[in-house]
Amino acid sequence: MNWENDITRKLNIRYPIIQAPMLGVTSPKMVASVANAGGLGSLPLGGLSVERSKELIHETKQLTSNTFAVNLFAHEIPLISDTAKRQVEEMTQLLNRLSHENNLPTKDLNSSNFTFHSHDTQVDLIIEEQIPIVSFTFGILSDEALKKLKANNIILIGTCTCSEEAKLLEDKGVDIVCAQGIEAGGHRGSFLKSDLLPQIGSFSLIPQVCDAVSVPVIAAGGIFDKRTYNAAISLGAKGVQLGSAFINSDESLAIDSYKNEISISKDIDTKLTRSFSGKWARGIVNDFIKNIDESNLEIPTYPIQNSLTGEIRKQAKKTNNKNYVNLWAGQSSRYAQRKSCREIVEQLIFDIENN
Amino acid sequence: MNWENDITRKLNIRYPIIQAPMLGVTSPKMVASVANAGGLGSLPLGGLSVERSKELIHETKQLTSNTFAVNLFAHEIPLISDTAKRQVEEMTQLLNRLSHENNLPTKDLNSSNFTFHSHDTQVDLIIEEQIPIVSFTFGILSDEALKKLKANNIILIGTCTCSEEAKLLEDKGVDIVCAQGIEAGGHRGSFLKSDLLPQIGSFSLIPQVCDAVSVPVIAAGGIFDKRTYNAAISLGAKGVQLGSAFINSDESLAIDSYKNEISISKDIDTKLTRSFSGKWARGIVNDFIKNIDESNLEIPTYPIQNSLTGEIRKQAKKTNNKNYVNLWAGQSSRYAQRKSCREIVEQLIFDIENN
Repeated sequence: MNWENDITRKLNIRYPIIQAPMLGVTSPKMVASVANAGGLGSLPLGGLSVERSKELIHETKQLTSNTFAVNLFAHEIPLISDTAKRQVEEMTQLLNRLSHENNLPTKDLNSSNFTFHSHDTQVDLIIEEQIPIVSFTFGILSDEALKKLKANNIILIGTCTCSEEAKLLEDKGVDIVCAQGIEAGGHRGSFLKSDLLPQIGSFSLIPQVCDAVSVPVIAAGGIFDKRTYNAAISLGAKGVQLGSAFINSDESLAIDSYKNEISISKDIDTKLTRSFSGKWARGIVNDFIKNIDESNLEIPTYPIQNSLTGEIRKQAKKTNNKNYVNLWAGQSSRYAQRKSCREIVEQLIFDIENN
Repeated sequence: MNWENDITRKLNIRYPIIQAPMLGVTSPKMVASVANAGGLGSLPLGGLSVERSKELIHETKQLTSNTFAVNLFAHEIPLISDTAKRQVEEMTQLLNRLSHENNLPTKDLNSSNFTFHSHDTQVDLIIEEQIPIVSFTFGILSDEALKKLKANNIILIGTCTCSEEAKLLEDKGVDIVCAQGIEAGGHRGSFLKSDLLPQIGSFSLIPQVCDAVSVPVIAAGGIFDKRTYNAAISLGAKGVQLGSAFINSDESLAIDSYKNEISISKDIDTKLTRSFSGKWARGIVNDFIKNIDESNLEIPTYPIQNSLTGEIRKQAKKTNNKNYVNLWAGQSSRYAQRKSCREIVEQLIFDIENN
């Protein structure tokens, strides 16, 4: 079987199988394990400081000499308006109450200091480290960042959730578009200014994105085996991105109770929620989501809410408490296997080749 | 190419291509046109009286000697509670206001009389008319109806929107399950008692339903060409159901302004709404949906709201007013072609055979 196509050539990989960047789940070991199997590992650096980004890149380089990508967040850094201040105050009270009631040893939240890192601060590091591929989500990188990255021949992968977003990405010169179907776990990459959040299933999204742009398309959302790989290719995708399929892997940073929830999850167990970060994301419903939803409080915008909930999630993680961490999961997460990432990729390749 | 499989054998059709039953869009001519092309036409009878059902069956039989299916609604008939009475009163006021403001020559709504037809009243007719296939949605037919239909060797197709529903249908003895992905236009077939409406994309739904049941599976939602046909088959489906693909056909009952909206629709233009019928359904957003949503009124349950909005929809239809009819559409509706249904099916078959 000949795997070579536009995606493998542009990305310099053997198989058009991409591991989704999952902040909090993806480790340098995961990235390297996928890279060593011939796929594309993606190191999530969205919102991290330059120092932390550098550490993670170095760790990954120690583990593989193969190509890997880094992933950036392209959102706007919000101003803290008076409305936001009120929202933060109300949300902080609720979060403090929830952590006390649930015996989470969190420090009382003090919401006065937020430090947000823009992707612009990470671009020089990426160039310096000679990272060959940058994927991004939540929008489009700044013109300056795009110019610098392109001047250094870095391949760009933008994320879209509708064909209009795909066209905007192509207009800005991305090399590849990743089309994220509604099946996908974790954050929606949506960035179109619109009343409605695009919630398009992969069956509608992939062909329409392929018809809208001329750059190659990666399908993301609900892909986990040869059936779903073949379906994505039938729809016109030239590569696939898997996220949930790696959550239960040996190299995953997910806590045990999270992995267990993934194993027993059903197709109806996830929902879209803004409760954890302020941006829409798909996860398994737990007490945290229920409590925030039931409070009917206005949720501060990303990344404000993300900062506010950081401490509670950190403490829950330490105590393996699945009810107060984000259980990001796609609609097919139950197929996640407890193997190394390398084995997961190799199994998929074997199954496809022996169709 | 050999098209014979479990679906074509059970349904006695040449190609595993099914036209979705679309009340208000599907005519006997549409059903016959698809049947004459070798696919399965589906005549929607959900909620209709026995007399009207009989007329439509006879009309269809005049136009084709091939097999066709009839489609029933399996919802429960609601009691009109005090809450429902209040909701009806408030909604009636709003609807009267909207029709006056928009110059729709509707009779003032009088909500005191509702006539709901249960599928139980249609079963004897179906047997008498020797209809070989009954598909249904919104739940499971009554045990009595199932027993009668099965005793007469009528093939049953149940609709599911998650794997749990698929299992319930299989347990009740259906011959085939139709799995409706979130991409699909029109009413959701969901019937699981659950806080969350299942909103599963076909990429996750089809493989999980195929893994959950042993009867053959039909994929519905987002299917319109050889790419999407092949993808559905890759995921494990043995047949496909197309709805939006037929809305702009010559045999469609859709008014011109509706057809035009379909032609220019984008993947992000539809949403799920309860505004027209009380049940969740996917349609292109128009003034009616916006007005009902913005009113924040509680929407009476199906089929109460459906009856209430009937008059306004009827008058809007007469005046080709796209803003006050339900513009049901799937997420790929823009690919609908202005041809005969027969040509649409034949083109699809040709494209698949000459892959």
